[in-house]
Amino acid sequence: MQPRLSFITLGVADLERSKRFYTRVLGWKPMHDEAAIVMFLLNGMVLSLFVQEALMDDAQVKNDGRGARFTLAQCLRSPEEVDALFARLLKHKVTITKMPKKVFWGGYSGYFADPDGHLWEIAHNPFLRMDAEGNVLGMSDV
Amino acid sequence: MQPRLSFITLGVADLERSKRFYTRVLGWKPMHDEAAIVMFLLNGMVLSLFVQEALMDDAQVKNDGRGARFTLAQCLRSPEEVDALFARLLKHKVTITKMPKKVFWGGYSGYFADPDGHLWEIAHNPFLRMDAEGNVLGMSDV
Repeated sequence: MQPRLSFITLGVADLERSKRFYTRVLGWKPMHDEAAIVMFLLNGMVLSLFVQEALMDDAQVKNDGRGARFTLAQCLRSPEEVDALFARLLKHKVTITKMPKKVFWGGYSGYFADPDGHLWEIAHNPFLRMDAEGNVLGMSDV
Repeated sequence: MQPRLSFITLGVADLERSKRFYTRVLGWKPMHDEAAIVMFLLNGMVLSLFVQEALMDDAQVKNDGRGARFTLAQCLRSPEEVDALFARLLKHKVTITKMPKKVFWGGYSGYFADPDGHLWEIAHNPFLRMDAEGNVLGMSDV
C-alpha cells in the first residue's frame, strides 16, 4: 500500500454547524458542498465533514460511543487495485469492517481497521482527479 | 488559516504493535522512529503514531474514553504566526485546549477543538522542511 492519504473524513454531529466553523472561522472555501457532505481541498488531499451516523454506517461499524469519529482514505485507480489490496489484507488477517463493493455515490469501496480500530477506507472514486503521484487535484463534475 | 494539513497523529495503545502493522502489513517505511513516536512521510504531510495517553496529555484534554483518538496539525513558519492565529481563534470564541507555548521537542504549539471536539494543533516546528506551498518534505536531523 502506498504511503499516501486521499481523504480524511471527520464525523460531525451537525453538518451546518461544522460547515460554519470551517468556512467562517477558519476561512476555508468548500470544493464540494451538498446535503450530506462538505469537502475542502487541502494540499494534495481532501478534508470532508460527514454526519457521524452516516460515517459509521458507511464503514459498517457499530455505534459504541467511541467508534469512527473519523476515517482515513486512500483512493486507488481501479476497482481491481482495491480488490488486490484487500486480498493482501486478508492474508495478513487484518480486521476488515466492509469488504469492497459498489457504493451509492458511484465508487467502489471497502474499509479495514488498524490495531487501534482507526479506520481506513480504500476506494476507487471515478470522479476524483489525481496527479501521477496520487495527490488529489479535485473532483470532476458529478 | 490556510487549507493545509501537515500532520495527522493517531493515538495508539501499543506503539510497537502499531508500528508492526504499518511497516509489515502496509509496507510503509518510517521517516522518523523513536521511543515515543513513529512518523511516516505521506504525500506532502506526515502520519504519526503516538501513544494515546501522551497524545491526550500533549493536547491537554481529559481521558473521558472518547477524547483525542487522533489530532490534525498545521505547521506554520514562525511562533508569531501561531500567536496570530490563536488571537483570531480567541476573537471567534473557539474552544482552545492549550494556548501556544514552547514544548519539549523544541517547537511552539497550541491546540483548539472544532465543534465536535476534533483537535487541531497549530505549531511551529523548526525541524520541519516544507516547500513554498507548505507541503511537508521531511524533517531536518534533530
